[in-house]
Amino acid sequence: MSLAQAQPSPVKLTARDAPGQPEPTAALAQLYRGFEQEMLVPLWTEIGGLMPAHPKSQAAAHLWRWDNLLKLADEAGRIVPVGRGGERRAIALANPALGGRPFATPTLWAAIQYLMPGEDAPEHRHTQHAFRFVVEGEGVWTVVNGDSIRMSRGDFLPQGGWNWHAHHNAASQPMAWIDGLDIPFAYYTESQFFEHGRLHLDPQERATPEFSRSERLWAHPGLRPVAHLQDSPSTPLLAYRWVDTDRALTEQLALEAEGCAATVSPGHAAVRYTNPCNGRDVLPTIRCEMHRVTRGASTLPKREVGSAVFQVFDGQGTVTVGERQWQVRRGDMFVVPSWQLFSAQCDADQPQLDLFRFADTPIFEAVHAYRVETP
Amino acid sequence: MSLAQAQPSPVKLTARDAPGQPEPTAALAQLYRGFEQEMLVPLWTEIGGLMPAHPKSQAAAHLWRWDNLLKLADEAGRIVPVGRGGERRAIALANPALGGRPFATPTLWAAIQYLMPGEDAPEHRHTQHAFRFVVEGEGVWTVVNGDSIRMSRGDFLPQGGWNWHAHHNAASQPMAWIDGLDIPFAYYTESQFFEHGRLHLDPQERATPEFSRSERLWAHPGLRPVAHLQDSPSTPLLAYRWVDTDRALTEQLALEAEGCAATVSPGHAAVRYTNPCNGRDVLPTIRCEMHRVTRGASTLPKREVGSAVFQVFDGQGTVTVGERQWQVRRGDMFVVPSWQLFSAQCDADQPQLDLFRFADTPIFEAVHAYRVETP
Amino acid sequence: MSLAQAQPSPVKLTARDAPGQPEPTAALAQLYRGFEQEMLVPLWTEIGGLMPAHPKSQAAAHLWRWDNLLKLADEAGRIVPVGRGGERRAIALANPALGGRPFATPTLWAAIQYLMPGEDAPEHRHTQHAFRFVVEGEGVWTVVNGDSIRMSRGDFLPQGGWNWHAHHNAASQPMAWIDGLDIPFAYYTESQFFEHGRLHLDPQERATPEFSRSERLWAHPGLRPVAHLQDSPSTPLLAYRWVDTDRALTEQLALEAEGCAATVSPGHAAVRYTNPCNGRDVLPTIRCEMHRVTRGASTLPKREVGSAVFQVFDGQGTVTVGERQWQVRRGDMFVVPSWQLFSAQCDADQPQLDLFRFADTPIFEAVHAYRVETP
Amino acid sequence: MSLAQAQPSPVKLTARDAPGQPEPTAALAQLYRGFEQEMLVPLWTEIGGLMPAHPKSQAAAHLWRWDNLLKLADEAGRIVPVGRGGERRAIALANPALGGRPFATPTLWAAIQYLMPGEDAPEHRHTQHAFRFVVEGEGVWTVVNGDSIRMSRGDFLPQGGWNWHAHHNAASQPMAWIDGLDIPFAYYTESQFFEHGRLHLDPQERATPEFSRSERLWAHPGLRPVAHLQDSPSTPLLAYRWVDTDRALTEQLALEAEGCAATVSPGHAAVRYTNPCNGRDVLPTIRCEMHRVTRGASTLPKREVGSAVFQVFDGQGTVTVGERQWQVRRGDMFVVPSWQLFSAQCDADQPQLDLFRFADTPIFEAVHAYRVETP
Repeated sequence: MSLAQAQPSPVKLTARDAPGQPEPTAALAQLYRGFEQEMLVPLWTEIGGLMPAHPKSQAAAHLWRWDNLLKLADEAGRIVPVGRGGERRAIALANPALGGRPFATPTLWAAIQYLMPGEDAPEHRHTQHAFRFVVEGEGVWTVVNGDSIRMSRGDFLPQGGWNWHAHHNAASQPMAWIDGLDIPFAYYTESQFFEHGRLHLDPQERATPEFSRSERLWAHPGLRPVAHLQDSPSTPLLAYRWVDTDRALTEQLALEAEGCAATVSPGHAAVRYTNPCNGRDVLPTIRCEMHRVTRGASTLPKREVGSAVFQVFDGQGTVTVGERQWQVRRGDMFVVPSWQLFSAQCDADQPQLDLFRFADTPIFEAVHAYRVETP
Repeated sequence: MSLAQAQPSPVKLTARDAPGQPEPTAALAQLYRGFEQEMLVPLWTEIGGLMPAHPKSQAAAHLWRWDNLLKLADEAGRIVPVGRGGERRAIALANPALGGRPFATPTLWAAIQYLMPGEDAPEHRHTQHAFRFVVEGEGVWTVVNGDSIRMSRGDFLPQGGWNWHAHHNAASQPMAWIDGLDIPFAYYTESQFFEHGRLHLDPQERATPEFSRSERLWAHPGLRPVAHLQDSPSTPLLAYRWVDTDRALTEQLALEAEGCAATVSPGHAAVRYTNPCNGRDVLPTIRCEMHRVTRGASTLPKREVGSAVFQVFDGQGTVTVGERQWQVRRGDMFVVPSWQLFSAQCDADQPQLDLFRFADTPIFEAVHAYRVETP
Repeated sequence: MSLAQAQPSPVKLTARDAPGQPEPTAALAQLYRGFEQEMLVPLWTEIGGLMPAHPKSQAAAHLWRWDNLLKLADEAGRIVPVGRGGERRAIALANPALGGRPFATPTLWAAIQYLMPGEDAPEHRHTQHAFRFVVEGEGVWTVVNGDSIRMSRGDFLPQGGWNWHAHHNAASQPMAWIDGLDIPFAYYTESQFFEHGRLHLDPQERATPEFSRSERLWAHPGLRPVAHLQDSPSTPLLAYRWVDTDRALTEQLALEAEGCAATVSPGHAAVRYTNPCNGRDVLPTIRCEMHRVTRGASTLPKREVGSAVFQVFDGQGTVTVGERQWQVRRGDMFVVPSWQLFSAQCDADQPQLDLFRFADTPIFEAVHAYRVETP
Repeated sequence: MSLAQAQPSPVKLTARDAPGQPEPTAALAQLYRGFEQEMLVPLWTEIGGLMPAHPKSQAAAHLWRWDNLLKLADEAGRIVPVGRGGERRAIALANPALGGRPFATPTLWAAIQYLMPGEDAPEHRHTQHAFRFVVEGEGVWTVVNGDSIRMSRGDFLPQGGWNWHAHHNAASQPMAWIDGLDIPFAYYTESQFFEHGRLHLDPQERATPEFSRSERLWAHPGLRPVAHLQDSPSTPLLAYRWVDTDRALTEQLALEAEGCAATVSPGHAAVRYTNPCNGRDVLPTIRCEMHRVTRGASTLPKREVGSAVFQVFDGQGTVTVGERQWQVRRGDMFVVPSWQLFSAQCDADQPQLDLFRFADTPIFEAVHAYRVETP
């Protein structure tokens, strides 16, 4: 399938009619045979695709309906066991224009994960950065380095690379959520490490506390524990609860109504999940945000370097990505490829449209390659 | 050819016999058909390739002989014109395991460029970061934002993204050099911009000064012009001359002989080209270094996250990359894929082996994904 | 008084008997007269005081009793008006060893401020960084750039330099609180600016909201408003409420009881007030923390470069500063000079000793001069 | 003398007639007696001096003539021995308005140091940051952690805190140079450490190499030794040679003549000495620069937060500091207090005026308190 090891592939050159091409003479043909033999490719035949005037994404704007995702995940829950080797009952969005690979965008992985009552997803760790986001349901706890973290609707659980983690379903019904990772980025740049941990959790790790230790240490606004002052490139706060996110968005809109500069644009509130150690993104490669668009309002159309994946958290509305437009509702997921114009509008009969968003922007900011444009 | 726009590719799933796979039942087959229809791919069939224990590069360790590169470039010089559209007479190394694409490694572009007497390579700019390195020859000046920079044997010319640049050959013989860029990284992450500039330089820009303005401002050790104190993510020093590089390496070895800690390991001196604004890499995505291994000495075998390209600048020796080993000499270029062990040894009958090296390490350092191991 | 402009002071040298002094000859006396005439002082007579083996603070460890502070402030409330010119009814701790200057330590200002019912402290701004901390009482609102911030017991209100601010007492009783600033540091390094603002607030600025706009925007754990992503050297969060601080300390001690590494040392919990933009100190020059020592427990004795001021927030205990030791209770304030050993112990009959602390540490960290030692 | 330990000084308050003062009643007098007894000082009597509208330096603009400095140093050379205890034959500028203390400005120490033929200044180390600058002469080597550094006219030798260092005069004539340190800053903020080293150097440390090991490793423009990649807050390059400084200034003026933006203002070239590890100041607390003003040109008048000390390196001209103005020549030293306007003009009959300058600016930049103004 898609990830079979690449085979040695002979270079194959043909004279082209792109601008700036040499005459297709016999000498040129012979030169090209020489290039092929030596594993060489000239710039002049490739420059159009390699160095476009602006990003022209190979990925497609695409929408996955939550109903379909959930139905298939549920079927998988019945016939596909979870265990060592397969590791997770996770089913990834495969962008239709990325060759059947399980890549939502060139850099981002997005999957629905599903755990049956009483099941464990075995412990492992990897350098890929990850998060979970819960659009609905509850009952699963994620255990990160022995710390049990409840997962409930609206909660965001980031998890920096190389931390041991497992999941267990302590409830009597199945639970689904989404995983986001930088697997494609690590895959393409060949920078990933992985280790198996224990197959099952210790009994005391099956605790189902309302709040994890990480929250009890870190979820106090502006307060850092003096015992933990070292910087950490990934956030030490392992759960961002919906009650906080919702209150922050609500306050932005209330402040806007009072005439204060608090929202991104009229009717469009947004918070970024950040690392309390440094105020930066929760993960070194993934930016995560929650956006709220109020009744009848729209976000300003914007294009950015890099790609993003959205999941509708609540409400209904219309989203526009490049040439595509969809009517969306709770759980629906869609992809915004690099440099495609994006905007979202809340339906007039809905109080709000809440959109969870993750993007690869930190990579571009880190190497000074980020651009954004609001036409 | 290789860079044709990716076509919508239907997902195609088959039951596998990898560890942790579910029973290949009819129900599973039906589930997989459902996945295919919804553009979904499960993790459990792909995890082996996606999340290996450590990087297993798709790129191959490969060597290109300078004689062959030069011969083909010379032929191209005779039959392929340089001008608008094709932009450069640059011929890129195509890693044999990367599908015939003009990519030396998954992230790095390496090419030989060739300019005939009197020729101009037209002005353009792009966000991809670039450098030139001259293994032999002289006579070409690169003009960056109107500043003329001489290119001579051993010189290293970095050039951060989005600066206007052109080349002109002021000599009576052709000249070849190598270009290094982050084209594959920008291509894969879809973050590139490009603009055409003027077709020909102004007469005064055809000046052939020994030293560029950038050198006259910046090439003074530890001294910054007070008129230019703002930080710049790419180096403002546009040429690093061989006389300086050679002296730095010579001094390291002399200090080592005097008992001082100056070299990387016994008989192995190395300098990194850095940005005088911040002491960091010259380019945000590419690390460039010159290594010198003395008679009979070797570098310590090392594996690193990320890939590198080397060109032999001087001397002869043996290089080992993973399972491959080559006897190399001036101009030869080779690739070290991610996480493959690399070492180099200078021949016993040679005073030294000088290796120019460039690598994508800054990308991994920026996102906290770098690892290195010396077994 | 203390701050009269320094007068031209003739140098006055005498031969000394410190180690390494020259013979007290006539020639030496004549040389010293020459030095005096030219405004010169030799190192050799001064080195002992100038360059000691470790900091030997000129400041004294000293304690001010809250009862006395409050009584005097209350008297001042009756006979000293607040208005333009005097600006604030603030009464500063004058370290007994710092020449009668209103400096608690060489770098820090600490004062009790007092506002009568209905009074306004007029608007001004200054580059000195400031905070308020409320050990008891309520009823005053601080207005920072038009944002009204309630002040109640346990609340910490940082306020970076150069922001307009005023206070007004909306209650029917007087209120006292403490102010901390870097006035002595700015005074000594001569780096301060000041501007008068309006004498009285606008009616709508006399609002008495429970939460300020800054809290509504910023007091959500790990969440940043996307509309305010620029970094800010001083915190944009203008109030840190006691309910949060208390909960954070309580959780640390509960986690300790569960066997987790959460406290500074057994029975000693502590939080640092931080800037949510960058995770660093709330103010560029002042570190602020709340410490809790539980029944019978002590902090580990520690000495640090730089000075600190403490106020007892709750409970009773014994504090040791260098050679001094005091029994302290609510509101008492004391000074820890540079490099003097400090420890605190909670009385055995008290549930806890809560200590608010501020220190000049960020200055030393910024210039790489910080040291700490736990004997 | 000046640095006698401060004595407990009772607070002494008198009613004032400054703006905003309360009525001088009996009740006020009694209140003030209460303040005095409790070691308290009100803000309202002090605010004018403590919180001026802008820095009003207590330091005086002052000039020291090199002839006088040299003559007195020479006399000291004959009658004051150098050795353990006194440590250095250094004679410090004592700002006439700073109470007879050996402080050139509130933060900076500047001294002439003098070493007789064959003499050693014994080894020690201290956390205060230091540099040497040589206005004329040669023959002394400074030994830093065993590395011998030649001192010749125009050379600048920075030396970060806590490095062992000694000096020895290998010539047959005395030598003078200037030392700059942050002694007053460390003294006032009480952050200094000091240790004695060996009384005499080992024979091999008396070597007199032309170039130190630090230069051989680091004095190559833009090139870092790969064996030394860790950042260092103080520069690892221990000598900045005049030949480089002079060439950099000469090139700036030549570029200006060619129409390029290279100088600070017309006829005013300047370089900053920087740390090749990070492009920042050579020392965490002291900025060092060399300025060149050409025949008849002037620098633009400028006032800055923080203080500076200048030494005329070459040429003659007129300098203006606040209300003061002096005609200066080689070796003359003068002080620019905080926020006083400074400008310099080269005499019309001189090819150039070269000014060495050091300032405490990095302290203010580090705590975000720097301001500059060009009226």
